[in-house]
Amino acid sequence: MSHVFTHPWLAGLFADPETAALWSPEAQLEGMRRFEAAWSRALGRAGRVEAETAETAARAIEAMSFDLSDLCDGTGQDGVVIPRLVAQMKAAAGAAKGAVHAGATSQDVIDTSLALSMTASLDLFEARLTALNDSLLRLSAEFGENPLMGRTRMQAATEITVADRIAPWQQPLQAHLQRLRELRPRVARVQIGGASGDRRAIADQADVITAFVAAALGLENPPRAWHSMRDGVAEFAGLCALISGTLGKMGQDIALMAQQGIGEIALAGGGSSSAMPHKQNPVLAELLVTLARFNAGSLGQIHQAMVHELERSGAAWALEWMVLPGIAETTGRALTVAATLCSQIRRIGTPD
Amino acid sequence: MSHVFTHPWLAGLFADPETAALWSPEAQLEGMRRFEAAWSRALGRAGRVEAETAETAARAIEAMSFDLSDLCDGTGQDGVVIPRLVAQMKAAAGAAKGAVHAGATSQDVIDTSLALSMTASLDLFEARLTALNDSLLRLSAEFGENPLMGRTRMQAATEITVADRIAPWQQPLQAHLQRLRELRPRVARVQIGGASGDRRAIADQADVITAFVAAALGLENPPRAWHSMRDGVAEFAGLCALISGTLGKMGQDIALMAQQGIGEIALAGGGSSSAMPHKQNPVLAELLVTLARFNAGSLGQIHQAMVHELERSGAAWALEWMVLPGIAETTGRALTVAATLCSQIRRIGTPD
Amino acid sequence: MSHVFTHPWLAGLFADPETAALWSPEAQLEGMRRFEAAWSRALGRAGRVEAETAETAARAIEAMSFDLSDLCDGTGQDGVVIPRLVAQMKAAAGAAKGAVHAGATSQDVIDTSLALSMTASLDLFEARLTALNDSLLRLSAEFGENPLMGRTRMQAATEITVADRIAPWQQPLQAHLQRLRELRPRVARVQIGGASGDRRAIADQADVITAFVAAALGLENPPRAWHSMRDGVAEFAGLCALISGTLGKMGQDIALMAQQGIGEIALAGGGSSSAMPHKQNPVLAELLVTLARFNAGSLGQIHQAMVHELERSGAAWALEWMVLPGIAETTGRALTVAATLCSQIRRIGTPD
Amino acid sequence: MSHVFTHPWLAGLFADPETAALWSPEAQLEGMRRFEAAWSRALGRAGRVEAETAETAARAIEAMSFDLSDLCDGTGQDGVVIPRLVAQMKAAAGAAKGAVHAGATSQDVIDTSLALSMTASLDLFEARLTALNDSLLRLSAEFGENPLMGRTRMQAATEITVADRIAPWQQPLQAHLQRLRELRPRVARVQIGGASGDRRAIADQADVITAFVAAALGLENPPRAWHSMRDGVAEFAGLCALISGTLGKMGQDIALMAQQGIGEIALAGGGSSSAMPHKQNPVLAELLVTLARFNAGSLGQIHQAMVHELERSGAAWALEWMVLPGIAETTGRALTVAATLCSQIRRIGTPD
Repeated sequence: MSHVFTHPWLAGLFADPETAALWSPEAQLEGMRRFEAAWSRALGRAGRVEAETAETAARAIEAMSFDLSDLCDGTGQDGVVIPRLVAQMKAAAGAAKGAVHAGATSQDVIDTSLALSMTASLDLFEARLTALNDSLLRLSAEFGENPLMGRTRMQAATEITVADRIAPWQQPLQAHLQRLRELRPRVARVQIGGASGDRRAIADQADVITAFVAAALGLENPPRAWHSMRDGVAEFAGLCALISGTLGKMGQDIALMAQQGIGEIALAGGGSSSAMPHKQNPVLAELLVTLARFNAGSLGQIHQAMVHELERSGAAWALEWMVLPGIAETTGRALTVAATLCSQIRRIGTPD
Repeated sequence: MSHVFTHPWLAGLFADPETAALWSPEAQLEGMRRFEAAWSRALGRAGRVEAETAETAARAIEAMSFDLSDLCDGTGQDGVVIPRLVAQMKAAAGAAKGAVHAGATSQDVIDTSLALSMTASLDLFEARLTALNDSLLRLSAEFGENPLMGRTRMQAATEITVADRIAPWQQPLQAHLQRLRELRPRVARVQIGGASGDRRAIADQADVITAFVAAALGLENPPRAWHSMRDGVAEFAGLCALISGTLGKMGQDIALMAQQGIGEIALAGGGSSSAMPHKQNPVLAELLVTLARFNAGSLGQIHQAMVHELERSGAAWALEWMVLPGIAETTGRALTVAATLCSQIRRIGTPD
Repeated sequence: MSHVFTHPWLAGLFADPETAALWSPEAQLEGMRRFEAAWSRALGRAGRVEAETAETAARAIEAMSFDLSDLCDGTGQDGVVIPRLVAQMKAAAGAAKGAVHAGATSQDVIDTSLALSMTASLDLFEARLTALNDSLLRLSAEFGENPLMGRTRMQAATEITVADRIAPWQQPLQAHLQRLRELRPRVARVQIGGASGDRRAIADQADVITAFVAAALGLENPPRAWHSMRDGVAEFAGLCALISGTLGKMGQDIALMAQQGIGEIALAGGGSSSAMPHKQNPVLAELLVTLARFNAGSLGQIHQAMVHELERSGAAWALEWMVLPGIAETTGRALTVAATLCSQIRRIGTPD
Repeated sequence: MSHVFTHPWLAGLFADPETAALWSPEAQLEGMRRFEAAWSRALGRAGRVEAETAETAARAIEAMSFDLSDLCDGTGQDGVVIPRLVAQMKAAAGAAKGAVHAGATSQDVIDTSLALSMTASLDLFEARLTALNDSLLRLSAEFGENPLMGRTRMQAATEITVADRIAPWQQPLQAHLQRLRELRPRVARVQIGGASGDRRAIADQADVITAFVAAALGLENPPRAWHSMRDGVAEFAGLCALISGTLGKMGQDIALMAQQGIGEIALAGGGSSSAMPHKQNPVLAELLVTLARFNAGSLGQIHQAMVHELERSGAAWALEWMVLPGIAETTGRALTVAATLCSQIRRIGTPD
């Protein structure tokens, strides 16, 4: 996640509060809390601890507040927040501390929380893609028969219609919706492995425990820990970049159409200039290009993180932490920018 | 496509002749020839030219040989090979030249040929993924119960089994096979648009013509030209990078396991050194890491090309030409390297 | 700038407060304030406004506080903060408002502020590179004669010494210091162009005004506006990635040396695990690899922003805003991580 | 190096024969031959072999022809060409084989050959940058006073002159020339290390041998092997991307200026279209954008290769092989495209 999303003034351009909420530290913490509470209850269900102890631990975890400063110190020390988070949870659970995190490991907590953020993002993006698709269909219905000069290699070619110009903005959105539905079960998965990822610590109860936790969190229950197989994460990032890429093409087109001398589109609400107050800048159209190019590069970073050493790579995992939230928020913002931009269109093409 | 695939000696390390054949200039030319022959016949079928003229043109196109030097000059002049290619085809068709390329445009020919290369690659990769999956399952059957020290953050953690180590190499292959089948209809599509992509030049016969060409080439017939919507191309590249990324993780693991002092794997056939003839280098394991990191970066380049201006971007399109064949060949090579590497494994873990 | 630098707990791993301070919104605002105050005084010096009016405006600018919420709204509207910032400054200057920003434009203010952040970062990095170079020389002096197995392609090769292992960590630092000094004058430059970058609005007084502003800010005064020539920005990012790349190699080496079964290094202060309290993870060594790979990808994003359309690209400029601060902070953090890691080394190689 | 540079017809667009010659397999082989011949003579000079034996070996190396098929097999086996290359050289040297390669290693030969390719590229690029700078100054002298509408965010801003438009194409070239001169000594360096890079095998004669080889090849003689310090390689790639980035901005500007409705430039020699023979496409302008975006992404790949494990990374080294020649050839081609494009300009701006 780039600082631009929370920056005092750049946020005015870049922020998407809804997506941000899904990837915020608060959401991450809540996801970890939900995992640990479900885990405690699952230990009870599986008979590894007394049911009452399990419930006591789960409720303590659900009710507690966290010492963030201690979590920060611990992350600096351990490279991961979980040892200190678990220590705080055990302290909160008191006598029930044996029902906290027993048989789980850092990656179970963090990657399951990650799966929750990705899954919620898919829900949000699905709704936005659907709405944007409708908006573009409406624009096409309204202006679609207007003539327009087709431009290939930025040169006038043959006359087309506005519907022809809009179709490449709209049609890929339907493909993205299809992709989203296909990849969801590969992303919306609980991660449970224990110390080295082999579930040995929960042994005979692995099926009961994983099924319970998955159901509690509304996630799929894959047959194995996926923490050292990052293809689901990279595929999620790939869908994000496909979405922002399509919208970047739309933004580039609109910025070109809005040029003086071209004049193929009329927009309300463009940005002004400190030196030339009369100007109307196609700020949001340009922003779509920015977001597309950012995500294109970020996707390459995420794919570097697929080379994940052995049972757990500290290096590759932390690279995802640096990059993935920003990909999601960039995608979310691209979707809100595109929606606003559609609402600013007053005319496309020349009415005959 | 990087020069390494055809380099006089680096090809020994990098070449995958089967994939190369699908992306070679010869294959590209054959794809364009097939498109144009089908197009001529489709014009006859649609009644735009006499059926006999159409067949004469198609046969001339199928039988002709090309003047590559002229194509090269033309590409330098026009930025694309098709104007000169069509001129050669018309000359070959003689009196039937009216049945050549009429109503089509450069992108129809090149992008349909591209779709043929991508589709054939999917077939090849599907077969290789299936075979590699089987090889890994066999390795797991043979050595899977051997104990192994689990290593997280490159540090000894808890004991696992060889089956636990192999699973993250093997399981994503099944997910890749699923992805491949899902994306195939988004990739295996004929591209037909004409001058500005609106099919206006073939107007009322568009359905007949596109259906005929698609059937002749064994491709899907989408409702519109896709040449300015590059999401299918980027998705294909994404699958390639997911495959090579999984194999890069396998390669990294094996290189680490082969270290003196670790000794978790015994390989036959490692590389030797000019200074230290006794060494056995895990050359293929390292190569998998190289190929994964190359594709990760190349994927970012392909996504930059999604920002495709208006009815056709010369800049973005040519960027794909530079990058996409290399992504496919890197992926193909990663699959053959992984297969060879599996066959070189003599032992994993310590027999008890 | 990735969110990890200010994240409630990930900051424990990623934050570098000193570098963050140079790229914070506060620092950016201070840089813009300094530019505008110097600009007002320069207008007085050049005789474009009364000297007293100029001084009144400058002092108002220096003393005022900003309405951040208004700046955020304005950035969302205009795509850039300056129109609203200048409006606030004019309101603060009251009757002296004619001496505010007259003849300047958004990019003058933002890019000069950027130059201040880059220049201050160069100063900080220079000091850290020098200190780190000394630390590595000390380690080499202390342990350099210890024998060590040379490892090529991760395989035991021939015996070397610890000094041989450390040299590739240390020697490039001296090259980086040389590079830093060479590029400084290409980065530490005032940006002044006015509306379309041609300085026409300050016409005959351009020399006086630019020289005054440059001197006031301690920057070079290049002959022209550089706002559409981003080579200095990209070169700065390149140096950052070179530095983090060298440190990533050092981190990768140390993580490999710390493996059980290799044992070439002893570190104090490694991270612990939630599942295996006995483990000592080489967290900081891995983090150096993460930071190197992040910057490598980010550098590609910055170079995409060199394709800056005409007199000003909104799209390319905003891409820098998303990426450049993170590159600087990643580099700064890599330098502090490397310094801490050096201090944690208790032994390298085997004492004979 | 992408296949486009040697492709039967795409080469018409992408090839730069002069740069290709510096990175061709023939040039690489010649560089390796020159290293080995110089090495043999250096062994004689240092008294490690008889002077006459050394000369016999050197002459055999200089006169021999290579069995490329054997080199290819060997590279596949060993991951590097040198073991087999040296075997062929020893066979050619016959009784003098003791004077071949003794004390050297693969990386000495390959990386010194690489340094020769990089250095020759710097010479070529320096000449081209100088000539292009002159061309742009001439264009500015001819058309510089013509008025032009300044365009910020692709919107009409205030009137500027053609000289203002050209300056951001030309001025960075001078900065690139300065950078090129500064980095040359960090790139034009002999690589000599022996088995693990410590020069132990040539021990007391290291100074004599390295000085002799460096002088024979016209390269600097650094105090140590640099084969595991890749900052020079990455810096070279960075300069390449800076050059192509500047030219990409020029190309993007020209493509925008050439739009119908804008008409700020008149070009001779644009490309034609298969569907619309009347069109004049700004093919070379677009190509500059393609080349810039390709190099931006490729630079990120090269920086990933800085994480070079221990005394030699097979994985990172091979990644450079895949990417670096293409960066150089892209840069060379961008320089020839820009030169041709300048010569095609018939008018910029509107004569008053």
